[in-house]
Amino acid sequence: MRDPLELIKPQVRGLRRYSLRVEAAPVKLNQNENPWDTPLEIKQETFRRLDDRQWSRYPEFVPSSLIARLANFSGWPAEGTLVGNGSNELIQALLMTTVGEGKRVLINEPTFTLYRQITTVLGGEIISVPLTSALTYDMKAMTAATESLNPDVTIICSPNNPTGCAISQPDLSSLLEAAKGLVVVDEAYFEFAGETAVPLLKQHRNLVVLRTFSKAMAMAGLRVGYLLTAPELALEIAKALLPYNLNAFSQTAAEVAIEMYETLLKPLVSEIVAERDRLFDQLSGIQGLEPVRSRANFMVVRSNVDPRRVFDQLLQRGILIRDVTSYPMLQDCFRVGVGTFEENNMLIESLREIFAHN
Amino acid sequence: MRDPLELIKPQVRGLRRYSLRVEAAPVKLNQNENPWDTPLEIKQETFRRLDDRQWSRYPEFVPSSLIARLANFSGWPAEGTLVGNGSNELIQALLMTTVGEGKRVLINEPTFTLYRQITTVLGGEIISVPLTSALTYDMKAMTAATESLNPDVTIICSPNNPTGCAISQPDLSSLLEAAKGLVVVDEAYFEFAGETAVPLLKQHRNLVVLRTFSKAMAMAGLRVGYLLTAPELALEIAKALLPYNLNAFSQTAAEVAIEMYETLLKPLVSEIVAERDRLFDQLSGIQGLEPVRSRANFMVVRSNVDPRRVFDQLLQRGILIRDVTSYPMLQDCFRVGVGTFEENNMLIESLREIFAHN
Repeated sequence: MRDPLELIKPQVRGLRRYSLRVEAAPVKLNQNENPWDTPLEIKQETFRRLDDRQWSRYPEFVPSSLIARLANFSGWPAEGTLVGNGSNELIQALLMTTVGEGKRVLINEPTFTLYRQITTVLGGEIISVPLTSALTYDMKAMTAATESLNPDVTIICSPNNPTGCAISQPDLSSLLEAAKGLVVVDEAYFEFAGETAVPLLKQHRNLVVLRTFSKAMAMAGLRVGYLLTAPELALEIAKALLPYNLNAFSQTAAEVAIEMYETLLKPLVSEIVAERDRLFDQLSGIQGLEPVRSRANFMVVRSNVDPRRVFDQLLQRGILIRDVTSYPMLQDCFRVGVGTFEENNMLIESLREIFAHN
Repeated sequence: MRDPLELIKPQVRGLRRYSLRVEAAPVKLNQNENPWDTPLEIKQETFRRLDDRQWSRYPEFVPSSLIARLANFSGWPAEGTLVGNGSNELIQALLMTTVGEGKRVLINEPTFTLYRQITTVLGGEIISVPLTSALTYDMKAMTAATESLNPDVTIICSPNNPTGCAISQPDLSSLLEAAKGLVVVDEAYFEFAGETAVPLLKQHRNLVVLRTFSKAMAMAGLRVGYLLTAPELALEIAKALLPYNLNAFSQTAAEVAIEMYETLLKPLVSEIVAERDRLFDQLSGIQGLEPVRSRANFMVVRSNVDPRRVFDQLLQRGILIRDVTSYPMLQDCFRVGVGTFEENNMLIESLREIFAHN
C-alpha cells in the first residue's frame, strides 16, 4: 500500500487549513456579524411556514420560491440567480468550473482568505495585487496586471474584508472593459456601502456578483448566499453546485428575511452604518489609534501598541476582536466589527483605558 | 471581450447538469427518503435547544459537539471524523483534494450520478466497471481494473444506489489490499443493510467511509453527512471543506437525532427493512415484474412494460416512483422506495391493476 497522504495533491498538502482562534466573550466583534439577532417576527414566521414541513423529505431541487424573491430584491432575472450554502459554496462552484492547472486568478491582498485557498486546491495560480498604503484598491496596478497577465478570473471583495475599501462603479466598469476573463465582485457587505455592481450586469456578461445572508440579513448561522450573473454563465456554474445544497430551514428563513427586509432589517443596517461612523470618530480621538475608513460593518485600526496585546487586553474585558496581524500590510492593525450602541461604547471605553496606560 | 462561456472548462461545458423530473404526488417513493417524518420528540428537543440561539451568529468553526456524538455512534475517533452539508459535500472535498488532470477514479455503473459529475468537473478520468447482469458488484472485474489501471480513487456505493447491491466485508478487504489508491465506501444506506466498513478502518489507512442523515436518520431536508477515515487523511480532506459548512439548525437536529437513534429511529429502520422484504415478495407475485433483491430502502424492478409507462400510470394514481431508464443496464427497470405499510399497499395494488391490463 502507498502512503495514503501521497494521494493528496501536493498543493493541498502545502496548505494550512483555514482556521480561527476560537474564544468566547460577552461582546463578540470578531466575525463581522450583525450584532442584533434576526428579528423575532422573522423567526416566528419561519417557524410558522415550516410547521407542517417534513424534515425527512429533500429540499426542492431548485429553490424556485427563494430565487424568485431574490430576483425581485436584486433586480436581476431568476435565470441568472443561483443560491448556495453561504456565498462560499458559490465562489467554490465558480472556481471549480473555471480553474485548474495553468489558470490564473487575480486577487487583492489583504482580502478574504478563501479565494486563495480554493484556487490553490484546484491547482490554479494566484496573482496577488497589494492594496495601496492607504488600504484602498490600487486600480492602476490591477489594470496593469489584468492587461499583462490576463487572469482567467479576477475576484474583488467590495467592500473588502478585512479593510473595508470599496471599488467605485466607474473603476469597476474600466476593469470589466480591460478584463478578458471573469470578474467576480463579492458584495458580502454591500448593504452597508449602499453601492452595488448589479447595474453593470446587463452590459457585462463577464461580471459575477456574490452576496450573502450572513451580514446585513443577520443570518450567519443559517448559511445562505446567492450569485447573480448572465443566465448562460449561471447554467455552467450550477454544474458544480451540489444538488439540494440549501436545507429547507435556511431556505424558508431566507424567504421570510427578504420579504421583511425593508421594514425589519434595513433599519438595523442604517443603525450599524451610523454606529460605524461614530465608532470611527471616537477611535480617531484615542492617542495611539488610527482607524481606517470603511464602507462595511467593521474597520481595521492601526495601533502603536502590539495588536495582539490589544486583543488580549480587550478579551480580559470581555470583548473579542479579530487579530489580523498575519495578513499582509496589517501587522500593526486589529479589526473590530461594529456592535450595538452599548457594545461600541464598551469597546471605546476599554480602548481608552488600554491606551491611557501605554 | 472574450465570450465568457469560453472561460468555462471544456469538460464542464460538455456536462449535463444533474437534474430530476419534479412531480408532486401524495405517495412519494422517488428519492429513497425515510417515509416517516422525523419523530416529534426529536423536532421538539431541537427547537428547545435552539431557543436562545442567535441566528445572526456563525456556527462553530468545528462542530465539535456533533463530532463527539458521531464518534461515539460510529466507534471511530473524532479526529478522523468530518461533517458536511450532506455527504455530497464530503465526496466533493475528497475529490477536490485528490483529483485533477491525469487522475483516475474507478466507479461502478449504474451508481449514484454525482461521483462522475464531480470527477469530470475536476478534470479527472472515470474508469467505469459495470455491475454483473444480476446487478451485483463484479469483484473480479473491479480487482482486474484496480490492478491494471491503478485508480487514484475507487468509489463504492454500498448498498448501491440505484440497485441495492452491497459489497461484503471480505470482498472489500481484498479490494483494499489490491488498491494503491483511496477506496471510498458510500454508506448512505448502511443502516438498512446492517453491515458497515467501519471495522476495516483501523487496518486500512486508505479507506474512507461516507454516511448521511438523509435516509435512516430521516433528515434529508436538513443536509447532514459525515466522513470517517484515518485522522491524517481527514486533516487533508478538511482543507477543501468550506468554513461553517453546517448551519446551526441542522447541526443541533443531528445531535438530537443521534442521541435518540436507538429509541426512536432504529425501530423505523427495522420496520422499513421488514416492509422492503414484504414488498419484494408481493412484487415477485405480479406477472410481468421482477424485483431485484436490495439491501437498502428501495429496489429496482424489471418490468415487461415500458417503465416510463408504468411511471406515468402510477403518477395518475398519485404514486411517484423513479424513472431509471437512462442509467446503464436499467432500460427495462423502475425504482421504488420503500414507503409506509399503507403506501406500499397502494403501490402493490396499483401495480397489480396496471399489469393486469397489460
